[in-house]
Amino acid sequence: MAKEKGLTPQSQDFSEWYLEVIQKAELADYGPVRGTIVVRPYGYAIWENIQQVLDRMFKETGHQNAYFPLFIPMSFLRKEAEHVEGFSPELAVVTHAGGEELEEPLAVRPTSETVIGYMWSKWIRSWRDLPQLLNQWGNVVRWEMRTRPFLRTSEFLWQEGHTAHATREEAEEEVRRMLSIYARLAREYAAIPVIEGLKTEKEKFAGAVYTTTIEALMKDGKALQAGTSHYLGENFARAFDIKFQDRDLQVKYVHTTSWGLSWRFIGAIIMTHGDDRGLVLPPRLAPIQVVIVPIYKDESRERVLEAAQGLRQALLAQGLRVHLDDRDQHTPGYKFHEWELKGVPFRVELGPKDLEGGQAVLASRLGGKETLPLAALPEALPGKLDAFHEELYRRALAFREDHTRKVDTYEAFKEAVQEGFALAFHCGDKACERLIQEETTATTRCVPFEAEPEEGFCVRCGRPSAYGKRVVFAKAY
Amino acid sequence: MAKEKGLTPQSQDFSEWYLEVIQKAELADYGPVRGTIVVRPYGYAIWENIQQVLDRMFKETGHQNAYFPLFIPMSFLRKEAEHVEGFSPELAVVTHAGGEELEEPLAVRPTSETVIGYMWSKWIRSWRDLPQLLNQWGNVVRWEMRTRPFLRTSEFLWQEGHTAHATREEAEEEVRRMLSIYARLAREYAAIPVIEGLKTEKEKFAGAVYTTTIEALMKDGKALQAGTSHYLGENFARAFDIKFQDRDLQVKYVHTTSWGLSWRFIGAIIMTHGDDRGLVLPPRLAPIQVVIVPIYKDESRERVLEAAQGLRQALLAQGLRVHLDDRDQHTPGYKFHEWELKGVPFRVELGPKDLEGGQAVLASRLGGKETLPLAALPEALPGKLDAFHEELYRRALAFREDHTRKVDTYEAFKEAVQEGFALAFHCGDKACERLIQEETTATTRCVPFEAEPEEGFCVRCGRPSAYGKRVVFAKAY
Repeated sequence: MAKEKGLTPQSQDFSEWYLEVIQKAELADYGPVRGTIVVRPYGYAIWENIQQVLDRMFKETGHQNAYFPLFIPMSFLRKEAEHVEGFSPELAVVTHAGGEELEEPLAVRPTSETVIGYMWSKWIRSWRDLPQLLNQWGNVVRWEMRTRPFLRTSEFLWQEGHTAHATREEAEEEVRRMLSIYARLAREYAAIPVIEGLKTEKEKFAGAVYTTTIEALMKDGKALQAGTSHYLGENFARAFDIKFQDRDLQVKYVHTTSWGLSWRFIGAIIMTHGDDRGLVLPPRLAPIQVVIVPIYKDESRERVLEAAQGLRQALLAQGLRVHLDDRDQHTPGYKFHEWELKGVPFRVELGPKDLEGGQAVLASRLGGKETLPLAALPEALPGKLDAFHEELYRRALAFREDHTRKVDTYEAFKEAVQEGFALAFHCGDKACERLIQEETTATTRCVPFEAEPEEGFCVRCGRPSAYGKRVVFAKAY
Repeated sequence: MAKEKGLTPQSQDFSEWYLEVIQKAELADYGPVRGTIVVRPYGYAIWENIQQVLDRMFKETGHQNAYFPLFIPMSFLRKEAEHVEGFSPELAVVTHAGGEELEEPLAVRPTSETVIGYMWSKWIRSWRDLPQLLNQWGNVVRWEMRTRPFLRTSEFLWQEGHTAHATREEAEEEVRRMLSIYARLAREYAAIPVIEGLKTEKEKFAGAVYTTTIEALMKDGKALQAGTSHYLGENFARAFDIKFQDRDLQVKYVHTTSWGLSWRFIGAIIMTHGDDRGLVLPPRLAPIQVVIVPIYKDESRERVLEAAQGLRQALLAQGLRVHLDDRDQHTPGYKFHEWELKGVPFRVELGPKDLEGGQAVLASRLGGKETLPLAALPEALPGKLDAFHEELYRRALAFREDHTRKVDTYEAFKEAVQEGFALAFHCGDKACERLIQEETTATTRCVPFEAEPEEGFCVRCGRPSAYGKRVVFAKAY
């Protein structure tokens, strides 16, 4: 169907650009129920690539997939006091099933710590049953007030890892190991620079002892929490009575962790790399890495398409994800426009004159065209895709550096959070943190692991810094 | 943890054997909510292998994955009269969310025809937008009265394919294409012989014009519907106003199909191949194809484990799924027992004497041991796994043939359905079919596609046969 492909420029209205590009590039559409989205094949293919990368890394680190039920008895959620306080305002509740009112209403899982804790209490007896290293791919429901495709939806797809360990040390190592995997996904596959750090008490997961996070900076200067990994201590072990007999014959509570990454990561990709022409997809997660657009008239159609097919085969044989756009009803110009909108890293243009010269034109989504021998393309493209990835990462990192400021006054702080990360000292008081949020809408993103030790005074109240280093603040999604 | 691994013999109580083997082999456990199960890593790994096989075949036939919302407005389900009649008794309903009562209650999807139909009505305009070839991996909820792990659970995982076409012919081809894929999964991967056929009007999917099915016979003589593919005609197109402008400029309704296969397929695997010692898993779907059990005393431990590690690497390099059971706390006998229970096709026993002779003992889960040169194992095993698959299939087919009878009297019919498939004529009258079910608990499984044309008289009422061939009847899960 014919469509208007023009996008609102990012500089004019970033938020509108975001919503438009999702619709026009056919990543997703709105579902009939408030706050839900339908993820269309092009968007879902990005999610499948993310799944594949993470699933492999999870399995390489000894995790196994399992599946726990969608419905959780309300009484389970109440067993961990902070957990229920955090999640109950967002619950969707099943009250009727099979034509009858249920005796106990069922929560649609907002996360699965409770039901997994319940099962572990049955499965775990001895230190030999530990560690439990589980992961689940599935859907969860959180009924949020303001929704936004991918970033905050009533239902979303994610993975949730849950592990149980004999010791605190081992559990804490796991927390950091999984956060590193998320950081690798971001940097090495999505070309997104991220800051790894600790959430403050105010921002931690409801039920955690502490939460670690990867934080990315979007092109509008807002932060996005792209994945979190929690140390849950003995909180859920005590709530669900998950105990084991250790080697020393003592009966102890297990130490648990959980860690999750959702399809909001797709939102991070869109807002880190996209431009006024549309998406720019990182090659290692792009559903299509190279699109071939044949250029022909009636009399040249057959031989151009034949050569295009041959090229497609040669690129497939290199393990590339390639698409040949052989639709007759659209002009090459229309196709160029569409695949730019869809963010395909490279486009090969192949016309009769190119064929005669045994060459093709290679256009990068980051700009620039070059003419290359047709026969050289299969060998050249993998390296060019790697270079494309590096360039994306370089640009995103440069953007972040340009939009990060160390600030020591509240005035400078307020300006800095208008356009990116503010690195500032904070007293560690939750009430002060809340006031900063009320006054500026900025929140603490994390206390970064890799920051130099520095002492100073709270950017808002002037009391001594609590963290021994600067805290990352920003407005956030 | 130590466990009682003994199983109730199949001949004594097949149903009890089934429940026990699922628990003891750690395929699944019961969830806290009525009728739900937790699929544990060993069971989930079988599901992942099924997913991988199907997903590849779906993509090879041009389908793409997408994701539609879990919650469906109740009003959607009412739009197709037969559909709502069939599903409303089984719905789970969300009435409250975010702390408030919803204006319109939401059904937790029992299947997604309605919400996909709604989206298609927005997406489809022209013949160029067709066909739509979508698949979704996800969970659905059907609140059934009697539940049974894998076979009938309140929530289950499945894939549901949904396609829309310009013509009836094309849609009907799709229905058969996808049924064939299910039949291939059964025969070529799960070693399960299946009968492909048409459901009678009484047994078809609620909302379909007709339903096709693959039917397998379990070891207790009961049938199991292992996958279905439906031609929905214009039913959902009319209910959701899904129209397109065809090449001839006429505006027409699309023709839709849907097809699904769930984790009940795991139940089919268990009950087709399992025996009194436990599971017997078909090699192409088995999480572990070969288990290595090292046999050592303290002084031989190191060199035996080293050789076992080497063998493990060599088998991995062959692309085999191999596990080395190097747990010190269990005896070899205990391990043999456990891996038999878990249905691993081949076990390699490796002790110090074997090592001296440069050989190992290979034990098949189907019986029999042989001594082979260690160095020959990596080359030999792939062929042996194929032969194992063939033998499983041969046995299951022989069982089915032994348990299938052509019957022409109601007495003979009643006897035949005690132990398997009865091939009988039927008048095609729904009321008569219902009486047969009431009187014998047997139902029509399908009108097989590949049966010789034959005329006769209804096995119950004596009226002329309606189908031009015998119908397959059985008691069923």
